[in-house]
Amino acid sequence: MDNLDLMKEISTSSLTKIVLLVIDGLGGLPGLKTGKTELETANTPNLDQLANKGICGLIDPVSPGITPGSAPAHLALFGYDPLRFNVGRGVVEAMGIDFDLKPGDIAARGNFCTVDEAGLVTDRRAGRISTEKCAELCRLLDGLVIEGVKLLVCPVREHRFITVFRGGGLVPEVSDSDPQQVGVVPKTVTALNPHAGVMAAVANQFIAQAKTILVKHHPANMVLLRGFSRRPNLPTMPEVYKLKPAAIASYPMYRGLARLVGMQVLETGTSIKQEFATLKQNYNDYDFFFVHIKETDSAGEDGDFDRKVRIIAEVDSALPILLSLEPDVIVVTGDHSTPALLKGHSWHPVPILLYSQWCRPDRVGEFSESACISGGLGRLPATQIMPLAMANALKLTKFGA
Amino acid sequence: MDNLDLMKEISTSSLTKIVLLVIDGLGGLPGLKTGKTELETANTPNLDQLANKGICGLIDPVSPGITPGSAPAHLALFGYDPLRFNVGRGVVEAMGIDFDLKPGDIAARGNFCTVDEAGLVTDRRAGRISTEKCAELCRLLDGLVIEGVKLLVCPVREHRFITVFRGGGLVPEVSDSDPQQVGVVPKTVTALNPHAGVMAAVANQFIAQAKTILVKHHPANMVLLRGFSRRPNLPTMPEVYKLKPAAIASYPMYRGLARLVGMQVLETGTSIKQEFATLKQNYNDYDFFFVHIKETDSAGEDGDFDRKVRIIAEVDSALPILLSLEPDVIVVTGDHSTPALLKGHSWHPVPILLYSQWCRPDRVGEFSESACISGGLGRLPATQIMPLAMANALKLTKFGA
Repeated sequence: MDNLDLMKEISTSSLTKIVLLVIDGLGGLPGLKTGKTELETANTPNLDQLANKGICGLIDPVSPGITPGSAPAHLALFGYDPLRFNVGRGVVEAMGIDFDLKPGDIAARGNFCTVDEAGLVTDRRAGRISTEKCAELCRLLDGLVIEGVKLLVCPVREHRFITVFRGGGLVPEVSDSDPQQVGVVPKTVTALNPHAGVMAAVANQFIAQAKTILVKHHPANMVLLRGFSRRPNLPTMPEVYKLKPAAIASYPMYRGLARLVGMQVLETGTSIKQEFATLKQNYNDYDFFFVHIKETDSAGEDGDFDRKVRIIAEVDSALPILLSLEPDVIVVTGDHSTPALLKGHSWHPVPILLYSQWCRPDRVGEFSESACISGGLGRLPATQIMPLAMANALKLTKFGA
Repeated sequence: MDNLDLMKEISTSSLTKIVLLVIDGLGGLPGLKTGKTELETANTPNLDQLANKGICGLIDPVSPGITPGSAPAHLALFGYDPLRFNVGRGVVEAMGIDFDLKPGDIAARGNFCTVDEAGLVTDRRAGRISTEKCAELCRLLDGLVIEGVKLLVCPVREHRFITVFRGGGLVPEVSDSDPQQVGVVPKTVTALNPHAGVMAAVANQFIAQAKTILVKHHPANMVLLRGFSRRPNLPTMPEVYKLKPAAIASYPMYRGLARLVGMQVLETGTSIKQEFATLKQNYNDYDFFFVHIKETDSAGEDGDFDRKVRIIAEVDSALPILLSLEPDVIVVTGDHSTPALLKGHSWHPVPILLYSQWCRPDRVGEFSESACISGGLGRLPATQIMPLAMANALKLTKFGA
């Protein structure tokens, strides 16, 4: 019996409310001069007070040492084992542009690239063409029909696009055409199981037609595809937890991930205060809210320690809007760490605080990486957050007689 | 290879002795005035000294957030994965009255209930009839024989009883008749696999006969059955750990659980001192003792903070009897938390202390929830207690070359 089966068996619906505030890339590393992380540097009186009243700890999104992408990191926060439920690259990319994937669609991530006269890849990113140029080229490829399969081609950003294969009962088990290196020809897409022959054939025909269409568009004179995948059929949060869940996120990918697990995605603005205002407006209509703050991660990815500090402080100063609603359970954490020093996602465990009337407070008096080490939650897998939040909301019945 | 397979491979018999003292429902929540839990409030000089000399931590009976029943919580303490080894409701109830279940017996938990003239359930507990009345009604139903199956019907408490189906090679995979709500008719028992048809038929005939027999006994004019189950066939502690284990428990259910895993159940009195005296009397004859203290849990369930405090102090003051025996390993913990504030079992992790000559002491100087957070054992699943106790008793050989 796995985590979700267990939740399905013992969860009950009730009037209590849970808010899961995800500060993307929250965890950090100490700055060289001060020895303090971004979170430890930021002025966070409200988070500190909540940590003082609540219980703290550190979570591992996947397991110690593993740096997760956004999809597995968020699935884990929602209680889904990220090693069991895999969301393919093509699907993640499609969700990132709010593309409405239908159940049978196969999505692949595409790169416009440069090939020489011999057909060898010389630049996997076609000199990072502009997003406008990308959109123009996508329009040339969009709408092809190959063997009864309709192709939808949409720009993402710079050289990145997605191709969605619709119709024809295709399966996604095919290899990438992207060779992940230069100086070689793109790979032929091949079937990885006996049912995937048509998918491979259609993909190869698309690539051949694209090469012909793009021949005069150097440096973007070829395409590379990878991560063929289908929208996974996940048990939904209403089924598993008997919750009526809503998502408040300003970035498409997180809205897409929330939709995958059956959340209602609410319209919201892009600022932190607007997101919290959306929470307040919709507070009566749902019993679980996933609120996603993106900018901390972006600042970390840019290596901008000070900006990340400022955004954390901004979250803290907006927090009273959330606190005034008096949710039964408040969880504040991140999906993973994004230390400015590493300019990217990392494997470091992420601080978590949980506040409820029933949380058995520990002695942690501030919300920081170093204080959370001594927290009462200890160090636990991110997939345990939902069971803990559900328990603290008194939404779980006893297991076993 | 699971926990038990590993233990079976590397455990050895030796002269060292382990005492596992289970203070039922030990973990608590802070009282509103003092900010201290029951354990933190109680005067426990002996436990504190043992914590000081030993190593401490916090255990999760099942996993974070999960509130366990007594059966899964105890199986976990004995090293058995509680999600894998399931003890059905009927079996637990039978053990609770010391009923001697035979290997083929199917036990179901029963309620006397009230139905109206249309057959709709109006009270699932028949107005909580007295235990005496329950016993009288059970005598009317006891001993029926249906299709060669003998029915044994025994009172438990108030409206609760058990029905044991003996003979006929029955299997327990049938649905409940208890609809778990009023205003509807009792459900028909149905087979959940192709072999369970006879079991379902016999159960339905029993229910029909019971209805006829009880017709004039309003409000107890019908029965509801649930949790059809067979005594599980667990690997025993002598097989797994090569121990000669004994159980000292004054409540039938815990004696039953101990028997399930192959412990010898010792006759004992009901007081804590009597239980410790039983330990002393039998100390030479076994190498593992499970000593169970029930009253802490009962006080917690009653919401009686002060009584729970007093019972913990009473355990502490009797502890020198146990200490004078100088067991090689002493483990003190609970099967789960039962905070007086919640008046029931809860999901909060449970303090544990382990003392042995070889335990690598930590800096914890008192036995309390908050001190155990910083203990050297960290936070760990309850199933890891037995391997740790065995290791500290030098009863495990090296794993692998």
